[in-house]
Amino acid sequence: MTSYQPQQFASDNYAGACPEAWDAMLAANGGSATAYGEDSWTGQAADCFRTLFDKDCEVFFVFNGTAANSLALASLCQSYHSVICSSAAHVETDECGAPEFFSNGSKLLLAPSPDGKLTPQAIRELATSRSDIHFPKPRVVTITQPTETGQVYSVAEVTAIAALCRELGLRLHMDGARFAHACATLDCTPAEISWQAGVDVLCFGGTKNGMAVGEAVIFFDRALAADFGYRCKQAGQLASKMRFLSAPWVALLESGAWLRNARHGNACAQRLAAQVADLPEIRLLFPVQANGVFLTAPAPVLDELRRRGWRFYTFIGGGARFMFAWDARIERVDELAADLRDACRLCRAVPIDTAAALS
Amino acid sequence: MTSYQPQQFASDNYAGACPEAWDAMLAANGGSATAYGEDSWTGQAADCFRTLFDKDCEVFFVFNGTAANSLALASLCQSYHSVICSSAAHVETDECGAPEFFSNGSKLLLAPSPDGKLTPQAIRELATSRSDIHFPKPRVVTITQPTETGQVYSVAEVTAIAALCRELGLRLHMDGARFAHACATLDCTPAEISWQAGVDVLCFGGTKNGMAVGEAVIFFDRALAADFGYRCKQAGQLASKMRFLSAPWVALLESGAWLRNARHGNACAQRLAAQVADLPEIRLLFPVQANGVFLTAPAPVLDELRRRGWRFYTFIGGGARFMFAWDARIERVDELAADLRDACRLCRAVPIDTAAALS
Amino acid sequence: MTSYQPQQFASDNYAGACPEAWDAMLAANGGSATAYGEDSWTGQAADCFRTLFDKDCEVFFVFNGTAANSLALASLCQSYHSVICSSAAHVETDECGAPEFFSNGSKLLLAPSPDGKLTPQAIRELATSRSDIHFPKPRVVTITQPTETGQVYSVAEVTAIAALCRELGLRLHMDGARFAHACATLDCTPAEISWQAGVDVLCFGGTKNGMAVGEAVIFFDRALAADFGYRCKQAGQLASKMRFLSAPWVALLESGAWLRNARHGNACAQRLAAQVADLPEIRLLFPVQANGVFLTAPAPVLDELRRRGWRFYTFIGGGARFMFAWDARIERVDELAADLRDACRLCRAVPIDTAAALS
Amino acid sequence: MTSYQPQQFASDNYAGACPEAWDAMLAANGGSATAYGEDSWTGQAADCFRTLFDKDCEVFFVFNGTAANSLALASLCQSYHSVICSSAAHVETDECGAPEFFSNGSKLLLAPSPDGKLTPQAIRELATSRSDIHFPKPRVVTITQPTETGQVYSVAEVTAIAALCRELGLRLHMDGARFAHACATLDCTPAEISWQAGVDVLCFGGTKNGMAVGEAVIFFDRALAADFGYRCKQAGQLASKMRFLSAPWVALLESGAWLRNARHGNACAQRLAAQVADLPEIRLLFPVQANGVFLTAPAPVLDELRRRGWRFYTFIGGGARFMFAWDARIERVDELAADLRDACRLCRAVPIDTAAALS
Repeated sequence: MTSYQPQQFASDNYAGACPEAWDAMLAANGGSATAYGEDSWTGQAADCFRTLFDKDCEVFFVFNGTAANSLALASLCQSYHSVICSSAAHVETDECGAPEFFSNGSKLLLAPSPDGKLTPQAIRELATSRSDIHFPKPRVVTITQPTETGQVYSVAEVTAIAALCRELGLRLHMDGARFAHACATLDCTPAEISWQAGVDVLCFGGTKNGMAVGEAVIFFDRALAADFGYRCKQAGQLASKMRFLSAPWVALLESGAWLRNARHGNACAQRLAAQVADLPEIRLLFPVQANGVFLTAPAPVLDELRRRGWRFYTFIGGGARFMFAWDARIERVDELAADLRDACRLCRAVPIDTAAALS
Repeated sequence: MTSYQPQQFASDNYAGACPEAWDAMLAANGGSATAYGEDSWTGQAADCFRTLFDKDCEVFFVFNGTAANSLALASLCQSYHSVICSSAAHVETDECGAPEFFSNGSKLLLAPSPDGKLTPQAIRELATSRSDIHFPKPRVVTITQPTETGQVYSVAEVTAIAALCRELGLRLHMDGARFAHACATLDCTPAEISWQAGVDVLCFGGTKNGMAVGEAVIFFDRALAADFGYRCKQAGQLASKMRFLSAPWVALLESGAWLRNARHGNACAQRLAAQVADLPEIRLLFPVQANGVFLTAPAPVLDELRRRGWRFYTFIGGGARFMFAWDARIERVDELAADLRDACRLCRAVPIDTAAALS
Repeated sequence: MTSYQPQQFASDNYAGACPEAWDAMLAANGGSATAYGEDSWTGQAADCFRTLFDKDCEVFFVFNGTAANSLALASLCQSYHSVICSSAAHVETDECGAPEFFSNGSKLLLAPSPDGKLTPQAIRELATSRSDIHFPKPRVVTITQPTETGQVYSVAEVTAIAALCRELGLRLHMDGARFAHACATLDCTPAEISWQAGVDVLCFGGTKNGMAVGEAVIFFDRALAADFGYRCKQAGQLASKMRFLSAPWVALLESGAWLRNARHGNACAQRLAAQVADLPEIRLLFPVQANGVFLTAPAPVLDELRRRGWRFYTFIGGGARFMFAWDARIERVDELAADLRDACRLCRAVPIDTAAALS
Repeated sequence: MTSYQPQQFASDNYAGACPEAWDAMLAANGGSATAYGEDSWTGQAADCFRTLFDKDCEVFFVFNGTAANSLALASLCQSYHSVICSSAAHVETDECGAPEFFSNGSKLLLAPSPDGKLTPQAIRELATSRSDIHFPKPRVVTITQPTETGQVYSVAEVTAIAALCRELGLRLHMDGARFAHACATLDCTPAEISWQAGVDVLCFGGTKNGMAVGEAVIFFDRALAADFGYRCKQAGQLASKMRFLSAPWVALLESGAWLRNARHGNACAQRLAAQVADLPEIRLLFPVQANGVFLTAPAPVLDELRRRGWRFYTFIGGGARFMFAWDARIERVDELAADLRDACRLCRAVPIDTAAALS
């Protein structure tokens, strides 16, 4: 039943669980354990996060990022409030209305953010544009760190956004589906780029960091977490055999794999970017600051890539996206780079117009 | 970090993943796979269900039973409709309002069901009690098979309920958190007790059948499944690394472990019941037809049990509940029986009144 | 187009607007006024309530009781919380799931209340029955004053319930669809039976008090009213021509019609009860403490009543219900009493068994 | 208590009820009537709509436009579906998230519509832009007729949009808050611009057409209306004294006031537009096709207008908006025109730069 595919970089969701996560699940599988998070691994995992963040935070483990972000946002506002986000935000573009569903109607307000990053100015303009009762009152700002197109907010940028949020009475949520990658890039502590910078709630991605399943929702202000466990339960996000969602976190955090995995993904992205930097047909759409490369190339080049078996999406950021997980093999990255080079060469040989006409 | 507890029978959620499920996850973990169910295991798992049920059904894989049942019910009715269930139904008593949340307000109507099983008569009385617009229109009946207290609906009973549903324009949903155990008890095919008996949608429990995480929602009428994938996605129930939820099903169904596991649990329940049958202090609350034993005993007996380290719940069915999973060890079942016998003997020595006074 | 029916007492919703309410609407209709409550009548109406209750409360005007109660309850809890009510509560029995809809799933927990009134003991037992995460956390108690079957909570009773709520961390909501009638019966100030007794939020019924349309939601603790205006707007309960909902309140409260209307309804109920007190066939189901009479009578008696053109409901409280609005005509009440007496006499003439067989 | 303001044209919600509507309420108020729409006026009003539209449609009466549109949209899609609308659509910009609330999360997708009108091409592009499960499946198109900025879709335009909807499996909803004004402008029958053109559901505005309160939701395909009454009830939109919402419709439709009122508003808008057409400082932002005029003028001109006591909004369409209801007085329109002319003259006298600096 196992038909392995050649490794693809279409998504960092294509990877399995990393060895540390797997071994932790294996160990946790070894006997009887109390359900619904009353097991020893779950408490331990929460403590690991407290240590990692140097903060007595509240931690909840849920199944996936859709739920993590949607539940966190729902806990920060009521249905008649609104959430300010970038128009490129995953919660806006790729969650099939999940934030609206979990919150029973909170509206996402899209702030202009040409490169995918929110700015204090754009937030202020949107948040103060109207104050009448016909417009859902802004209550939360959510930023994705790194962004959907692989850019990283600096500590200063997050701090500035958080300061504005405080001024305007807004809460700050961070969608950290690839939070580890941002830490790796910034070379800062998780605390510095989260609560110390003013983030209220962080969704820390496990799946894209090497786990089989699971994300952590971290409330730095314990008061905001009041009854959040009930919220998870009601929304179908309380795992009965919770240890399979929590034990891997213990392993990832204690072993440092969470950061190693992220660094590896980031390095692969840098490697690909470096190898194609001299190709005139190719342009990077965004600075490479995390584990993804977004590039444009003439259609025949991309077609040739596909012909050679490469899979990639083009609906995010307007070009071809390549994402590198913890398991990305260097040789395979190099193959991709070589195929890109080759495809460019081939298309140079054939006049582009003809190629376009043929494609 | 692993502090194994002595095996407990408080819940069949306390077990880990069975070997077949585990090995399938291990195999599935071995490489790159397309996300969100576009992998080979997920398609294969759906096909396994089609074979098992001898029916071209639609199959969806979600994270847990809360979501499986709530999403299924929500798909069968609108917010202003109602769902008829037993007052002992898990969806009513232990889901923190999840069915109401997922459906945006569908009301559960409780039919009297003294022993936890719904009857056509009780359904009819409730469904036809009112037809005015101030009362949410009945639209679905849900039965739990086996029930929360371990009883099994016969094929004839399900057929009779389904016939009434057809007559009244209601849909029939089956909460099969322990569906395998019912099949084992009835010694019938899964088809006979589900779609052939008139069930529209079945939630087939994986977690209590030996999986680490995951349940299957099975629509026997494909038309009812229209756009259900979107519903799952929006509600945070679409796993990115879906293979970990689907590959174990392939293994469970192809190897027959799904039935073996259930038979083992059932046998353990029978074994415990048989061993305590002669104890005058102990009374079985319900006939033992699945993998649970519900018994009453004088408080000092239960206290003595607890003192010996046994954990069990008393809030379901009004007595002590013992549930046996795929991993229940026979010797441990016998230990429990022996401790129960011992506790009864001890309490016989001490007059009950005194004991009660002391407890 | 006007086909007036002989006056019926099936519901106090059958009455139109009383003269004071009507004249206020007429006056308010006389020109241009700012929409959405920014008109002069709306502010004035809120002030009238502040005067009436001798309290600087927050007041909102919505279209009907379904919305008033549901919005108030939704504002007091989250979807995973629960609301404790009597099993006879209107929010449970006759709102088609509205409270669950507006709150996105808050469950109503039914406390036993044999005569329709909640008691501190029943609330305590229910509220403390479970504290696990699988059970929606109790957060609000709602009482109907007077109850659906026309009984009135004394100031002492409300005070005792409120004290328990404080102790258990619960909020107290009062469904006052006929609040004026309770004030009339108790001969106390509105303040005494509401905030001074510990009520947090009161829905003060306008429709059954003589208005054409509209109810008031009164928050005695202003903090609880935060952003409630947005909640009303989003839920379709912000009237554009608000003056038609608020001006009548000014008239009702300033003229004292609110209390006169209620007293009249109460008096009619007492009058009917007194006139049939000596009829052995008739038994009052509940003490007559507001504007309704609930009585049982042999089926032939009720059939005879119907034959004489009387309309009444029998699904509330298990008998025939007669409700008296501000416009109930004394002669018509007397006609009803006479017809009841006559029907009893007739049925006495015919042996009941025969009558039953014929009916 | 009545402090009449000089007539303002900031909104057509500022008007009271027109004489026909008022007299019908007065007549309906004259006695006892069955509640919840079981009265004679409500049935009659529905019949009047069937006659007006020459169609056996289903008609429901609700309190306001927020609810009418939101309930209609919710009935046409599930929470994981999406609704295509103009970015200027009232449901998007001024309903505080009501459509998302009533539908439990259906997302509004904004099609580019430079002048506020949707086009088949823009709908097609948006509806076919994605078909993956992460994107809420388009299911409904909603158009506002006339648009929020006073433009009218021709019969041909609606027909073209409806044809596209049929092709793509979408339903077509029409927000007709000012539907009568569109009929007046187009000089067509209500049928021609609604169901005959392919509209599935129409919300026909009563408040802006001269009623005190109330809108009609009209399903031209009866099958789509299944159980819609329950939806209204649960959502707090079933009036107990329904006659006050339905009797005025009988009067408006039977007397022709619905069309007269609209024509009057339209004529006032034309009158104002004509009178300022020669003023070089003033530019009409949109063609005047209904009862509103949207114009830009130098800030000092608008300031001068305000100084003279005129109220108007500038947040819709980017300029000053003037809306004319059934009660707009011609002399007052002329006063506005004269003041505009005067303000322009004054500002011409003072160099604009200075004026701007002063303002």
